[in-house]
Amino acid sequence: MTVTLSTLNAAPSAVFVETLGAVFEHAPWVAEGAAAGRPYPTVEALFAAMRATVQRAEEGRRLALLAGHPELAGRAARAGRIAPDSIAEQAAAGLDRLSEAEFARFAALNAAYREKFGIPFILCVKRHGRASLLATFERRLGSSPEIERRVAEDEVMRIAAIRLDALVTGEGPLQTKGRISTHVLDTALGRPAAGVALELYEIVSATEAALVARAVTNADGRTDAPLVHGRPVPVATYELRVRLGDYHRRLGLDLPDPPFLDIVPLRFGVSEPEGHYHVPLVATPWSFQTYRGS
Amino acid sequence: MTVTLSTLNAAPSAVFVETLGAVFEHAPWVAEGAAAGRPYPTVEALFAAMRATVQRAEEGRRLALLAGHPELAGRAARAGRIAPDSIAEQAAAGLDRLSEAEFARFAALNAAYREKFGIPFILCVKRHGRASLLATFERRLGSSPEIERRVAEDEVMRIAAIRLDALVTGEGPLQTKGRISTHVLDTALGRPAAGVALELYEIVSATEAALVARAVTNADGRTDAPLVHGRPVPVATYELRVRLGDYHRRLGLDLPDPPFLDIVPLRFGVSEPEGHYHVPLVATPWSFQTYRGS
Amino acid sequence: MTVTLSTLNAAPSAVFVETLGAVFEHAPWVAEGAAAGRPYPTVEALFAAMRATVQRAEEGRRLALLAGHPELAGRAARAGRIAPDSIAEQAAAGLDRLSEAEFARFAALNAAYREKFGIPFILCVKRHGRASLLATFERRLGSSPEIERRVAEDEVMRIAAIRLDALVTGEGPLQTKGRISTHVLDTALGRPAAGVALELYEIVSATEAALVARAVTNADGRTDAPLVHGRPVPVATYELRVRLGDYHRRLGLDLPDPPFLDIVPLRFGVSEPEGHYHVPLVATPWSFQTYRGS
Amino acid sequence: MTVTLSTLNAAPSAVFVETLGAVFEHAPWVAEGAAAGRPYPTVEALFAAMRATVQRAEEGRRLALLAGHPELAGRAARAGRIAPDSIAEQAAAGLDRLSEAEFARFAALNAAYREKFGIPFILCVKRHGRASLLATFERRLGSSPEIERRVAEDEVMRIAAIRLDALVTGEGPLQTKGRISTHVLDTALGRPAAGVALELYEIVSATEAALVARAVTNADGRTDAPLVHGRPVPVATYELRVRLGDYHRRLGLDLPDPPFLDIVPLRFGVSEPEGHYHVPLVATPWSFQTYRGS
Repeated sequence: MTVTLSTLNAAPSAVFVETLGAVFEHAPWVAEGAAAGRPYPTVEALFAAMRATVQRAEEGRRLALLAGHPELAGRAARAGRIAPDSIAEQAAAGLDRLSEAEFARFAALNAAYREKFGIPFILCVKRHGRASLLATFERRLGSSPEIERRVAEDEVMRIAAIRLDALVTGEGPLQTKGRISTHVLDTALGRPAAGVALELYEIVSATEAALVARAVTNADGRTDAPLVHGRPVPVATYELRVRLGDYHRRLGLDLPDPPFLDIVPLRFGVSEPEGHYHVPLVATPWSFQTYRGS
Repeated sequence: MTVTLSTLNAAPSAVFVETLGAVFEHAPWVAEGAAAGRPYPTVEALFAAMRATVQRAEEGRRLALLAGHPELAGRAARAGRIAPDSIAEQAAAGLDRLSEAEFARFAALNAAYREKFGIPFILCVKRHGRASLLATFERRLGSSPEIERRVAEDEVMRIAAIRLDALVTGEGPLQTKGRISTHVLDTALGRPAAGVALELYEIVSATEAALVARAVTNADGRTDAPLVHGRPVPVATYELRVRLGDYHRRLGLDLPDPPFLDIVPLRFGVSEPEGHYHVPLVATPWSFQTYRGS
Repeated sequence: MTVTLSTLNAAPSAVFVETLGAVFEHAPWVAEGAAAGRPYPTVEALFAAMRATVQRAEEGRRLALLAGHPELAGRAARAGRIAPDSIAEQAAAGLDRLSEAEFARFAALNAAYREKFGIPFILCVKRHGRASLLATFERRLGSSPEIERRVAEDEVMRIAAIRLDALVTGEGPLQTKGRISTHVLDTALGRPAAGVALELYEIVSATEAALVARAVTNADGRTDAPLVHGRPVPVATYELRVRLGDYHRRLGLDLPDPPFLDIVPLRFGVSEPEGHYHVPLVATPWSFQTYRGS
Repeated sequence: MTVTLSTLNAAPSAVFVETLGAVFEHAPWVAEGAAAGRPYPTVEALFAAMRATVQRAEEGRRLALLAGHPELAGRAARAGRIAPDSIAEQAAAGLDRLSEAEFARFAALNAAYREKFGIPFILCVKRHGRASLLATFERRLGSSPEIERRVAEDEVMRIAAIRLDALVTGEGPLQTKGRISTHVLDTALGRPAAGVALELYEIVSATEAALVARAVTNADGRTDAPLVHGRPVPVATYELRVRLGDYHRRLGLDLPDPPFLDIVPLRFGVSEPEGHYHVPLVATPWSFQTYRGS
């Protein structure tokens, strides 16, 4: 359900506010503040106006905006008493499927954070894998109130930007999406490796890997769509497992048993959720390499 | 405890037979048969004479030689009622530390094999990792008596060669040893990567990896000794995990968090236990490659 | 000056024949033969009809078609007494700028060929570099009349295909064009190398290299247009010379003098004029590599 | 003709001085000054004593030492009126085979340098290729007297170190020698590429390349000896031309004509004459790479 920028520019104020009222959590006043500035030439300009509305607001409203955000994996989230966008965002990060131990850990972290800083812990969960989310939570617990106040508002802006980007299409779109893509090249034959099955995992811990995507390379050695796209790439360590041995067996090569290369793991870290991580595999039965490409 | 070939060549027959009597399991007659052919110019010639003694022996003796080998992880092995060399060999392969379930599986395989072929399942365990050992066992169960008779005798020869190689030094040594080595090169700086910690694991199953070796690269980017050497390299899939991120952090590089490359896994298969697997890592913070080198 | 296939399909026969009359050298009867088969759904179908017209023609006409082709760098070409398309094609191959010695060599080859086979030497010059052109000429001189008759007709078809492809646009275009492209990646920094100057040369002989293209990489590390495109890539050995040292100096790196890598030559051969040769450079100040990419 | 350090330590002073008298050009007093300090535990210590003798000498002697060096490609050198070591050193750098134009250029540079600095231009020619020698000469002409006085003395020390290193063997040798080596790996087959012919050229100018070494790889893919060794590697740009296509043809591969890779040029610069430049080629018929290895 998207709306065009020009529709929004032309809409009655009430419709504009109703459409964008949930972009900032429990804070339709931000959309109200931006309604008067229409028409906006780009989505970026619209978002800048919303951000400026927040920054111009008096202290009480700004604090209330922060306070209005639900805790991560908190009791309210568990009971479904949080904004629909937040429900979806926390679910996408797997926060609705925690074990009792994990839930308890989040509860403790949430309490400690609120105790120390007086606001809920706010993080744009769509930009973090599970390991990064917890590491960030713990790191920020050790921070100072001044820094955390600023960081929390930055995270509110990131959450809002992703919501707005998903809602409004038009010129000058917000850059909230990243990509992971690959390309398999057979340098023994000097051509793309077609029909190569591969899986992308998020490495959650030393013992847990979560499947993110599964694909088979096409005639150009690429996957028809990027492995991750249309959303931020969560900060995490990933492993792309490429079934190179199967490919070589299908070529009818006389391989040793086990082959020197069979399932090739390419492990890499993502630190910029809005970046493009092109991770090619250039390989023969006896060599392989990867690099951050473009 | 090794002896030189020249000492053996000059020794009284009884000493020669006593020294080499256990090279073929429970079959001192093989050493007896080779005693008269002395002096041998090379260890290879000595081994060839022992092999020829077996091949010239009458059928009953050859079958008894096979029958004299203990089952893998069998009851006799468990009770310590097998030859000392076999005890050590099975222990090195971890066959003395099986779970009850694994022990039961071996027992079933041993029984099925003996039932079908009339001889114990014989495999030179020093040349196989755990996964390869089980896969080979199951594959050979599906074989024919004629082939298995020949394969069993080949394995007896491999076991004997390793024992002889460990016992006798001299000209023309047997080639029973392989190697895994590595070399880490930093192509951002154009020099060897020194002080890089790495671990070599045997990938036993999708969920189990057994540590084989741990080392740190020296000033030349190599490990002071090969990661595996002085013995056959068990047929297996290995993973060399190189702590590249730590190396880059020590260089003081401004890396993203997480870095693009942190622990780099190089997964490769070994199919020739007597081969040299040189598996270098040529890397920058944003690229890496490996190949079977030399 | 191009025409659409649908225009041709709808045109009066005389216009159709006039438009396509020069596709086959001095042989408007081929276009005449194809006029009746209209409409053609694709350019490929149109060309197939023209080819079939040739193949169905009686022997005398087919021989005359071959005989109608000018010699390469021949007296007629020199005097401008050949078809306009041929003039342009020979000029593109540099055959109008030969030294007296080279002209004499062609004259001798032309005479020898005509003497042996009774037809002029026909070669689609747009598909060959200078060295390949001469090597092919000499190789074909050693061939047999049966083979040369067939090869000559194949070359006539290649010449015609390129002319038709340049003339007619529409569905199912002929595949007469190839490409050389590149991409420069900086794997020390993990990003495209922008602003890298490079030149593509055709290696004519051990002492002569002819400049083919010159470009600078854009922000994505690619050139705005492929180095060669919109035409067949002449069969030849090429050298892409990449000014990597200048790029590193602009980055402000502390390089030795001379740097380990300065102008990096990538030498490669093109054997399929209609192929895509993607020749990337993946480099740091201390390493580089290339491969046939896609 | 070498002598051991222990022989020198035990020799009468006169013999010591006679043996080492020519290490510093026309300055036997340097050897005399070092004679008394014997015995020296290492060649480095001996050299340090000779260097200290120079540094302690009064100004007149030090200037005379500089003045005693012949001009590069000067009239005296041409007439054979310079020290035997200098004759050999200048010949090794090709300075005895200059064209009249080059000779005139050196004459002009020599005159300008002597005019500006009052001493002959001194350079350890064994450490420079032709292009570097001229470039260094021109660069130093633009320098200041203070710097040039110091640089000239440094070069005298380099010349002396190489002479001493060639003369005396023993513990703690001087490090005056560098190396260029290579290693060709076939990563399509996962093994060293044996029997590969290669040539190393010094790139003198855009149109001139001088052959430095020619070799064929052995079973391990290396050359039996480094391409350059036992001497400083002259500062220069080099090109290693590897006949990869011939190797692939001998393997019986079905290659295109021309092959994608035939003669592969690896162009690299040497800036540290005492360094080890290991320049491997890791290749398939469709890819290759190199890097500064170790």
